[in-house]
Amino acid sequence: MSRKISVSQYLPILRWGRDYDKVKLVDDSMAAVIVAIMLVPQALALALVAGLPAQAGLYASIFGLSIYALCGTSNTLSVGPVAVLSLMTAAALGKLGLSSSAELVAAALTLAFLSGVFLLLLGLMRLGFMANFLSHPVISAFITASAILIGLSQMQHLLGISSSGQNIVELLTSLAASMNEISWLTLGLGLGSIAIIIWCRTGLNSLLTKLGLGSRLVTSISRSGPVIVALLTGLLCYVFRLDQQGVQLLGDVPAGLPGLTVPDFSVDLIRNLFWSAILLSIIGFVESISVAQTLAAKRREQIDLDQELVGLGAANIGASFSGGFPVCGGFSRSVVNFDAGAATPAAGLLTAMLIAIVALFLTPLLYWLPKVALASIILVAVYPLLDFSALGKSWGYSKADFAAVSITLFLTLLVGVEIGIASGVLASILMHLYKTSQPHVAVIGRVPGTEHFRNEQRHDVETFDNILSIRIDESLYFANTRFLEELIFSLMAKKPKLEHVILMCTAVNAIDMSALQTLEKINQTLSEIGIKLHLSEVKGPIMDKLTKTTLFANLSGSNYLSHNQAVEDLKDHELPLSGL
Amino acid sequence: MSRKISVSQYLPILRWGRDYDKVKLVDDSMAAVIVAIMLVPQALALALVAGLPAQAGLYASIFGLSIYALCGTSNTLSVGPVAVLSLMTAAALGKLGLSSSAELVAAALTLAFLSGVFLLLLGLMRLGFMANFLSHPVISAFITASAILIGLSQMQHLLGISSSGQNIVELLTSLAASMNEISWLTLGLGLGSIAIIIWCRTGLNSLLTKLGLGSRLVTSISRSGPVIVALLTGLLCYVFRLDQQGVQLLGDVPAGLPGLTVPDFSVDLIRNLFWSAILLSIIGFVESISVAQTLAAKRREQIDLDQELVGLGAANIGASFSGGFPVCGGFSRSVVNFDAGAATPAAGLLTAMLIAIVALFLTPLLYWLPKVALASIILVAVYPLLDFSALGKSWGYSKADFAAVSITLFLTLLVGVEIGIASGVLASILMHLYKTSQPHVAVIGRVPGTEHFRNEQRHDVETFDNILSIRIDESLYFANTRFLEELIFSLMAKKPKLEHVILMCTAVNAIDMSALQTLEKINQTLSEIGIKLHLSEVKGPIMDKLTKTTLFANLSGSNYLSHNQAVEDLKDHELPLSGL
Repeated sequence: MSRKISVSQYLPILRWGRDYDKVKLVDDSMAAVIVAIMLVPQALALALVAGLPAQAGLYASIFGLSIYALCGTSNTLSVGPVAVLSLMTAAALGKLGLSSSAELVAAALTLAFLSGVFLLLLGLMRLGFMANFLSHPVISAFITASAILIGLSQMQHLLGISSSGQNIVELLTSLAASMNEISWLTLGLGLGSIAIIIWCRTGLNSLLTKLGLGSRLVTSISRSGPVIVALLTGLLCYVFRLDQQGVQLLGDVPAGLPGLTVPDFSVDLIRNLFWSAILLSIIGFVESISVAQTLAAKRREQIDLDQELVGLGAANIGASFSGGFPVCGGFSRSVVNFDAGAATPAAGLLTAMLIAIVALFLTPLLYWLPKVALASIILVAVYPLLDFSALGKSWGYSKADFAAVSITLFLTLLVGVEIGIASGVLASILMHLYKTSQPHVAVIGRVPGTEHFRNEQRHDVETFDNILSIRIDESLYFANTRFLEELIFSLMAKKPKLEHVILMCTAVNAIDMSALQTLEKINQTLSEIGIKLHLSEVKGPIMDKLTKTTLFANLSGSNYLSHNQAVEDLKDHELPLSGL
Repeated sequence: MSRKISVSQYLPILRWGRDYDKVKLVDDSMAAVIVAIMLVPQALALALVAGLPAQAGLYASIFGLSIYALCGTSNTLSVGPVAVLSLMTAAALGKLGLSSSAELVAAALTLAFLSGVFLLLLGLMRLGFMANFLSHPVISAFITASAILIGLSQMQHLLGISSSGQNIVELLTSLAASMNEISWLTLGLGLGSIAIIIWCRTGLNSLLTKLGLGSRLVTSISRSGPVIVALLTGLLCYVFRLDQQGVQLLGDVPAGLPGLTVPDFSVDLIRNLFWSAILLSIIGFVESISVAQTLAAKRREQIDLDQELVGLGAANIGASFSGGFPVCGGFSRSVVNFDAGAATPAAGLLTAMLIAIVALFLTPLLYWLPKVALASIILVAVYPLLDFSALGKSWGYSKADFAAVSITLFLTLLVGVEIGIASGVLASILMHLYKTSQPHVAVIGRVPGTEHFRNEQRHDVETFDNILSIRIDESLYFANTRFLEELIFSLMAKKPKLEHVILMCTAVNAIDMSALQTLEKINQTLSEIGIKLHLSEVKGPIMDKLTKTTLFANLSGSNYLSHNQAVEDLKDHELPLSGL
């Protein structure tokens, strides 16, 4: 392969950029406007969720979007600040015990840099499969718990009081302590804002549709609730000087684009943020690709998971050098981008340009924006993330999944995001190992008159005193070898006339080294007491591996292609004793 | 169930004790004598390996053996100090930075107590499956590396110098530093001792067999090499006052049975020893049951894994209250016990009595025993534990197993036992998850003229433009759901006329909640672009679970009992377009 191809592999813009035309530009521009309208207030609000100054949200969006547009493979993924990552950023920074805003901003850069490097490394080493260790129910429980924590963290702005905390107990205690300072005016503004945003999405949406407006225009207007709220509440604050009546304003947001910022590379800071960065990157990656994959499939496009890691990694490193904080692909924003017709990653570049214009020219207006308006925007945005159905569904379907869901949900709420997600991942892995360590096994017999073998406990089947036929419904590997050994020895103890043990391997997809050694050991132990071990119906790929070993050479019995053939062969030897 | 049954469940002696008779007593006594002859010098030597006073080995044997005899289910397992656990004890105590012997003895009691409690809890909660997470190749690599470390730790006694260290680097550096102080007399005694022990096992053994002695007597005499060496070297030291020429003696060993010792329960000590105790218990348990299971199977007996945990737990707690240190079932000793004809756990009780007699009356003789004799006994005992075949075998069979073996072997040698075994376990779990996260999958087609479906890349099969048939050779669970999704979407992108995707589930042994949700998501995404998803040949237990969900209700396609039926049904729909 030439060098040119490998560059375009890591810079997909070189591929789609070649065919870029005016039609695509119009589509992308339209989508960019709609996404930018949605993103500006969200970005400001999410920076506050992360415990950072509002402008960090704008910077993270500009550089997250534009760098991903160069390296990402999804045409529609909208990269920038997202709620769950902002919460995780707040949790990671919260542990550091920093007080000044400047220190927090610096630590956020390091965090974004570390997670960017981690994602990039995973991508370059093609280790995207790491994300697989997060099970769906665990992610869903984690996102639900995170949404609750984010909602609670915004309550202070909605009520005009101040609170803090990394888990539900701390947040509720902190809120309860300042309940007597509630600013009713602030609360009123907040509830009004929430009502307007919801109405834009529902009432206004159907009204405009009835009026016959085009669906893109309807989407665009109905998604502009947050902007309308921002303008309206800002205007109210300015005209009536509501800040003098207890409403907290966003205050000064510096104008212009960020200068080049260099993350703090002190060893202590890196050590303290290391695991946070890893958890945060994996969550960000999983959230990004799950939406990117779904949207791509809808248009029969494909995304490259390893290149996505590279794209997201580069976006985070970019954010870390430009005053941002950790970013990933946002679910709802990407869906809006898709629905609005984004044709290529250029839509992201255009969105970034629009946000840059806001950062350059419109920040003076942001001074009057009340924090409660941003809190309302966040509350409406995280509400759809609440999904307790995983608890109910998993209870009915699988107790192991239920346990993993409960552990994730409750530990995230009660202890914090990092312990919560780490415990969830660990629990699901351990429970998977537990389940496969005790596989479903059937002692089988032949359905009379056929060549079919079925579980002797479920069916009326013929068995033979000198033969023990066992079907194992699981791959054989280290976690269940002891089970297999125990099983055979205990079944054997119940059959005094036993001469042959036949393992039917139709459902055995793999045999690892431990299982191979266990089979050899079982074979030896059985042959010492005069019992032969046979295998039947071993799959092709496993046969390929086993023939390279000494198993078949040492096997006291044979390896049969068909279980029925094995039984026919082996019961015959017995016939002269019992039959004649 | 009555209370009586549950007592005898936890005290198996109540069962086998009822039928105890004179024949069994003779068998057990014979075995007890042979094992005791073997155990006494080993127990003293292993106490030194653990960094404890020699008598601790006797005490640990007395109480380990007798308490296991009451609670254990194996008739032949010989519980007491074993080499690997002694090494792990030394490593655990070494971390504490203790200097006085009294403190080390106290900490060893706490370690034995903690691991006893952990084993007991696992047993009572029936969590014996935890031991399954140790794969065979990992254990084998760990034991090999431990044997090397034990051997190196004994070099100081063999050379008459002093050294210390927890890993190969520390041990070699320490040995090299005092190489100029080698006591050649000590080395000579050591090499002579080794020669005698080996000769007893080989030369003497075949000599006696040729002379026509009974096999039990031959075993007994050929195993008494260590005792002969102890007597001989002790006599030499006494007669020629070799201690004045640089040979180190064992010195005073207090006579009598131990008083009741109470472990130190300080929070700090417990926290420091916690993980060591867990690793040590699991290794001890795995070593015990692997030999117990093999020996039991040879006599068609059965052992109860959970009760074994109880028995070993009780033995360790017993050792912790009587001046001992962590114990488990020893491999070679148990085999000797078995070969010598031990019929019931009473053999262990009798062995314990013999050791108690030694502790009561023979300790004055031990004063003259040179440490180099004990080191020689250990060196001969650990030599058979060296087994590098796992490296070679796993290289040929499975690179994942090879990686786990290498990690365990090298980290144990280079860093230490605890990091080594923990990394090995982690590596094998991660590699198992990695393998199952990228399962073997085949796009299948029909072998013409049959109802069989085979991999289209391996066989000449008929396929249809509107149908994509996929067989997945793995259970579907969280680690491979994303793989499944990516696979289907990428295969789909290559078939423009696609109308039906059929998943053949013959080798799918389980579908967890994540996989269920992924199937629902794939179904929805496909149906939005007019492609139907079908399943075929789903196994009974999985059908039972799936019918409780909404999957089949929402499935755009159908669930077929036979894959051929599915293809017949679905290709027909296409026929009018292409065929007529």
